[in-house]
Amino acid sequence: MIIEDFLDKKLQKILNVKAEKLNNAIEKGIIKFFEFHGFPALQFKKGVGNIEDGTVIYFRDKIEVIRGFPKTRRTLMLSPTLKNHFKDKIVIEEKMNGYNVRIASIGDEIIALTRRGYVCPYTTKKAVQIMDLNEFFNDNPDLVICGEMLGTDNPYVSHYYEEIGSLGFRVFDIRKKISNEPISTKEKQNILKKYGLPAVRVLGTYNITEAPSKIKEIIKEIGEANREGIVMKDPEMIISPLKYTSSEAHADEISYAFTFPFDFGKDFFFSRVIREGFQAYEMEENEEELQKRAHRLGEAILYSMVDTIKNVSSGNQAVEDMVIDVENEEEAEAFLRHLHDLGVYALITKFEDKKAIIRRIHQSTTDKINNFLNGGLY
Amino acid sequence: MIIEDFLDKKLQKILNVKAEKLNNAIEKGIIKFFEFHGFPALQFKKGVGNIEDGTVIYFRDKIEVIRGFPKTRRTLMLSPTLKNHFKDKIVIEEKMNGYNVRIASIGDEIIALTRRGYVCPYTTKKAVQIMDLNEFFNDNPDLVICGEMLGTDNPYVSHYYEEIGSLGFRVFDIRKKISNEPISTKEKQNILKKYGLPAVRVLGTYNITEAPSKIKEIIKEIGEANREGIVMKDPEMIISPLKYTSSEAHADEISYAFTFPFDFGKDFFFSRVIREGFQAYEMEENEEELQKRAHRLGEAILYSMVDTIKNVSSGNQAVEDMVIDVENEEEAEAFLRHLHDLGVYALITKFEDKKAIIRRIHQSTTDKINNFLNGGLY
Repeated sequence: MIIEDFLDKKLQKILNVKAEKLNNAIEKGIIKFFEFHGFPALQFKKGVGNIEDGTVIYFRDKIEVIRGFPKTRRTLMLSPTLKNHFKDKIVIEEKMNGYNVRIASIGDEIIALTRRGYVCPYTTKKAVQIMDLNEFFNDNPDLVICGEMLGTDNPYVSHYYEEIGSLGFRVFDIRKKISNEPISTKEKQNILKKYGLPAVRVLGTYNITEAPSKIKEIIKEIGEANREGIVMKDPEMIISPLKYTSSEAHADEISYAFTFPFDFGKDFFFSRVIREGFQAYEMEENEEELQKRAHRLGEAILYSMVDTIKNVSSGNQAVEDMVIDVENEEEAEAFLRHLHDLGVYALITKFEDKKAIIRRIHQSTTDKINNFLNGGLY
Repeated sequence: MIIEDFLDKKLQKILNVKAEKLNNAIEKGIIKFFEFHGFPALQFKKGVGNIEDGTVIYFRDKIEVIRGFPKTRRTLMLSPTLKNHFKDKIVIEEKMNGYNVRIASIGDEIIALTRRGYVCPYTTKKAVQIMDLNEFFNDNPDLVICGEMLGTDNPYVSHYYEEIGSLGFRVFDIRKKISNEPISTKEKQNILKKYGLPAVRVLGTYNITEAPSKIKEIIKEIGEANREGIVMKDPEMIISPLKYTSSEAHADEISYAFTFPFDFGKDFFFSRVIREGFQAYEMEENEEELQKRAHRLGEAILYSMVDTIKNVSSGNQAVEDMVIDVENEEEAEAFLRHLHDLGVYALITKFEDKKAIIRRIHQSTTDKINNFLNGGLY
């Protein structure tokens, strides 16, 4: 009753979304009620008005609105896009290959949310182990730390970075609760320095005219180091950032997709191939460079697919093992429940020395490959 | 009125589809009325009951039912599929890269239908020029000749075959009107020989146990000769045929698709990549062979896409030019009207020496590439 009343009157003001729209979204299940540590809460499964999907609202002593992380748009071409989109200067930050996490304080707790607005128990625990966040949140209860959880013992996206190793965190944005307004890149650097929090690498600040040629060099180096890409930002963070990624990252993701070809959509694949086409064009690659890119693409597609077919033909399932670092089996089980909430089919295959192996099973790939191997028609 | 009466009473018996289903399909526009040379006719835009899409019914002195050409299913694996699907023996015929045509006599005319059931004026004219069909249809008015129109002056699928040159036709099936029942492969060979009609190459008849290893050899040779693939048939044509294609054909089609990436669906692409995966697995390729296949795939994707981006960036449209061989401009225009009926956007760019150049414009590819080149975000 109190919440209903609140929805009709107060929430529409806080979010600047009409009550009708909010009620409509609740009816459709787009905004979902849940309980978190004994308090009611709301999760936005999709965007509603200006409010991003992944937004969560906690009703504690105070109403805490942690907005979803806005989708960072991508450019296929550096020129003329950067000149059209930004003004004067761009800060280039590294985009790292992990999973997007928002960290915030609600009441006396610090929580870590994954992209869609779920509190991940593993990420929450690890975030506060990796970083000392108490001082930051004591001083800045209305700020949200947005960053990437990285490393090989990472249950969502496992990628090796020399400086990260098994698990690490890098901050890329600091945003305000309720408004989702980001603070400027400079202020962000100062705050992170002050509280000893780890920032993503800043690769330079460039005029928009010189940026495309600089970025071409940067993206080649990033690719050669098997790293993902960059995010280009307006220093004031008024204009929305853009992302741009390396050929090697595209190939990596395509290789992953074709390890589980019938589980990962055609969209996933097509968009990465399109990126390769425009990047090759803009890089003005010579015959040899273009051939190298084409071969990388072809190998990324075929090798992983053939490996999986071989593997399934030997009687195995198409699976993905992820290692997490937990105190006890209960913690691993809590993480598994979280995965099940997300609709991910997984199980614990091993627990030893405080490491749990979580196995994700790609059923559609397993079933379809078995069907074709047994003579099913396409 | 006569037709309506006919639909309710007679057609359901002829086709063995309930009147209700037929009327429903007519209401939905799935079965379309049209007039052909002054007589009423029906075209099936989609399958209805057992009746294939592309089926046409002509109401002349006699009711002529020319059934749609049945979809030939594909196998990704030769073993165990052939053993599961066929019994004892398989006839291997070459599958050639052109477009599917059904030729039939209705009244005193011989017409050539494309896959979806349109009478193509160009194909109709060329079919009777290329082959002497009168005797065949005089003797066999109730048979339909099913085959492939081939060659470089082919307005739908242009592919060079040494033995075909600019335009040629090869018969692969002879089927009965109304029932769509195919005659046996042996009887077909005899009839084609008798009437001097050109058959697709027969590559052998094999026991299902030896067929997979034989086909592996055949498909490699076919691919090396830049040809498409094979169709495997039950000699009696009681069990439905299956098709299987070469890696080179997949790469060719992928290359075509990525010449117009935003016009050709993701499905188009994905299915061909999947075929490559299973073929590579079944061929038990060594490292070098697999790498060759992967590189061919990557080059097929990237080279054509980069060429198109370059081309559009120079101010051109993404177009495809097709040559047809016509007596006069009116004939070229009749063909163009036919393309427009099919929903294909094309125009005549040149008419000289009885050759017309038909230009098909791929608008979506042109527009999207221009948008990205001008700074559009992805």
